[in-house]
Amino acid sequence: MLSCNSRPRQVLVINVGDELLDGLRENGHLLWLGEHLARRGLPITRSLVVRDDAAEIARAVGEAWGAYDLIVTTGGIGPTSDDHTREAVAGALGLSLTHVPAAEQALRDRFKMIGRKVAAADLSQCYVPAGADSLPNPRGTAPGVFLHRDGRALVMLPGPSLELRPMFEDEVVPRLRQVGCACQGEAYVQVRTFGIGAVPLEAIVRPLLAPGMALSFGTHTGVVDARISSAGGGATADQLCEVARRIRDAVGEDFVATGHACLATLVVEQLRSLEKTVALAESCTGGLLANAFTDVPGASKVFAGSAVCYANDAKVNLLGVPDCLIAQHGAVSAECAAAMATGAIEKFGSDYAIAVTGYAGPGGGTDADPVGTVYFGYASPTGVWSQRVALPGDRRQIKQRAVNTALDFMRRKLNKYRVEDLIHGA
Amino acid sequence: MLSCNSRPRQVLVINVGDELLDGLRENGHLLWLGEHLARRGLPITRSLVVRDDAAEIARAVGEAWGAYDLIVTTGGIGPTSDDHTREAVAGALGLSLTHVPAAEQALRDRFKMIGRKVAAADLSQCYVPAGADSLPNPRGTAPGVFLHRDGRALVMLPGPSLELRPMFEDEVVPRLRQVGCACQGEAYVQVRTFGIGAVPLEAIVRPLLAPGMALSFGTHTGVVDARISSAGGGATADQLCEVARRIRDAVGEDFVATGHACLATLVVEQLRSLEKTVALAESCTGGLLANAFTDVPGASKVFAGSAVCYANDAKVNLLGVPDCLIAQHGAVSAECAAAMATGAIEKFGSDYAIAVTGYAGPGGGTDADPVGTVYFGYASPTGVWSQRVALPGDRRQIKQRAVNTALDFMRRKLNKYRVEDLIHGA
Repeated sequence: MLSCNSRPRQVLVINVGDELLDGLRENGHLLWLGEHLARRGLPITRSLVVRDDAAEIARAVGEAWGAYDLIVTTGGIGPTSDDHTREAVAGALGLSLTHVPAAEQALRDRFKMIGRKVAAADLSQCYVPAGADSLPNPRGTAPGVFLHRDGRALVMLPGPSLELRPMFEDEVVPRLRQVGCACQGEAYVQVRTFGIGAVPLEAIVRPLLAPGMALSFGTHTGVVDARISSAGGGATADQLCEVARRIRDAVGEDFVATGHACLATLVVEQLRSLEKTVALAESCTGGLLANAFTDVPGASKVFAGSAVCYANDAKVNLLGVPDCLIAQHGAVSAECAAAMATGAIEKFGSDYAIAVTGYAGPGGGTDADPVGTVYFGYASPTGVWSQRVALPGDRRQIKQRAVNTALDFMRRKLNKYRVEDLIHGA
Repeated sequence: MLSCNSRPRQVLVINVGDELLDGLRENGHLLWLGEHLARRGLPITRSLVVRDDAAEIARAVGEAWGAYDLIVTTGGIGPTSDDHTREAVAGALGLSLTHVPAAEQALRDRFKMIGRKVAAADLSQCYVPAGADSLPNPRGTAPGVFLHRDGRALVMLPGPSLELRPMFEDEVVPRLRQVGCACQGEAYVQVRTFGIGAVPLEAIVRPLLAPGMALSFGTHTGVVDARISSAGGGATADQLCEVARRIRDAVGEDFVATGHACLATLVVEQLRSLEKTVALAESCTGGLLANAFTDVPGASKVFAGSAVCYANDAKVNLLGVPDCLIAQHGAVSAECAAAMATGAIEKFGSDYAIAVTGYAGPGGGTDADPVGTVYFGYASPTGVWSQRVALPGDRRQIKQRAVNTALDFMRRKLNKYRVEDLIHGA
């Protein structure tokens, strides 16, 4: 890792699209760009969402140009009648649009390949504000735009994620580095934890920071991330990594990973390295735990499957949980969780199994086990464990927290940590 | 439904929070507020995300006040040292903060109930800019703020969703109606479809609109929504509903619902009214289809469970798919999908079953069945069907599209529609 920006940059992201303002689509671009810009030493200063309206886009860019080191727009650069970003930006900056022959050739080649006719409107995409680069888009038709002018940069990215993300990585980051706007390496280190809250984590981390380091936290249904960055270039990359190592040591068994790997990915990797397999038995998580495993590419190497048994009959018929056990202890109990885990190992023939049963709400629950009570079972070649936790939130949050807790339970067991006193922090 | 705003309102949403700009948390508030403001005739004109920084918040509010009819802020009104919204807004508007005795009493009562001591910092939450209402927050400690001044409204909402949403519905909407800012009823109708793309849907819908009606589209991995609203009060609520009925008739079997109900909720409701149950057999959706069912509160009445069988052995052992069938046709085949569905009905004892097997990528696939190929099986008391579709996107998108397609498949079968020529539009 090399040194980073010596002064903080002012960064504005402008997302264009009616659907983002009408509650029709999540602004996933902001989440993704927020992380990827911060990693290059360009944390977003402000973000703006505007409608597919040429005057609105022009007004937003006109107001911002001169006040920001970097402006990134997303959306509105396609060929349809509600794509206005290209013209509006050029107009706001007082630049004419110039034709890029190479962009037209690439567009014609791509259309030929996919058997589509080139219409006049399509060719509007082959223009850029004078002096800008046209950025190739091998996954779609709309090329991006990179403009560097008066020491400031403006980038236009296409709306579809599958086009935006590789274009940002492959075309934009190298140019931002070239003009001295982005860091050469990574601008922060992130320490991911589970089982410790943000407040106790801050109490551990804060005293370990050197002057010139900034700290921020992210919490995701039980997972707590601490990010340490160099405020104004006051710390080197090596110093950041050294602090991350010291945090890791201080956090102990609650330390999950350095970086952005999710719990499911880490468990899958650990199982792959052990050449072991896992099966699941899910009641209240209702398939969400299986989904976390199967979101990991290549999970099929270690993931046998999941018996999602909502009905009690299904617990008996698919997992072989004894009728009388459910009658005596109830389906939401430590005993049932253990029996489900044992059943999953037997039915799937796996090395390990995790079971989850609980009350996700809004209905259900008892005085002793109210909504949010979840029992976990874990079976391995050496034994069976179960554990009870109380999780906050609504139905979906309880499901997600139960998934994270189950994955963390397995992480701890695979690491041979003690799990009896697991604490839920965030 | 009563009449709505006679002129379009200018609405600005300001979300406060470093975590939204650093890629640490999705801006779920914008999605939720976008829908719920639009339903009251207040589509968002522009949205802004700013950092937890008093000067930034004050600058944003100062720039905007006077230009918007309604400003909504989220976050930054709690008791901690990085909560600045209350003071920053008052400062930007040149208003002093005044103490609200009723808010302090409510806070003291709540703290007593949860056994927490009131600290000096907590009491900062009991102040509002002069002339504003303090909005009760029975689910948290930070009261909201409603300010109406010079014909304009400014609302401050707390950051946690579980507090923000009921406060908006219970405290903010009635006040916005009282001051004539929000519609008395619903401001648009939404027609939800599946199987028809946005472009052909627009060709059907556009000619049915009366003057003064505006049209927008939302697409969500196969689901395409058309929203018809009254632009500037040019159409009455009855006229909007009449148009929705005519769209429904014109769209035919691709019509899913009027409103916001998701496919899983509709299928669960349909099964409840029929008093029938369903089970699943999932390979490539990996639990995501089960999760769609179990996200619906009360799904346990109709949802027996899902056998998520990633490994071929699991398909044989849990679902009774014959070894030789997999050997002859492959696990990704119409035959295997049909056998999985039949197996699910038998093992779970359900009335219906859906099975999904395919290649979600990035690995896998064959020349004949490349990544994105998914086979669905459907078993009912009267027979077994299977179907092949080709779905675009990356691993997660293919999983989500497969889930929506499976649910739509079941919707059509329950409605006794033909399913052979299902088209994937969006």
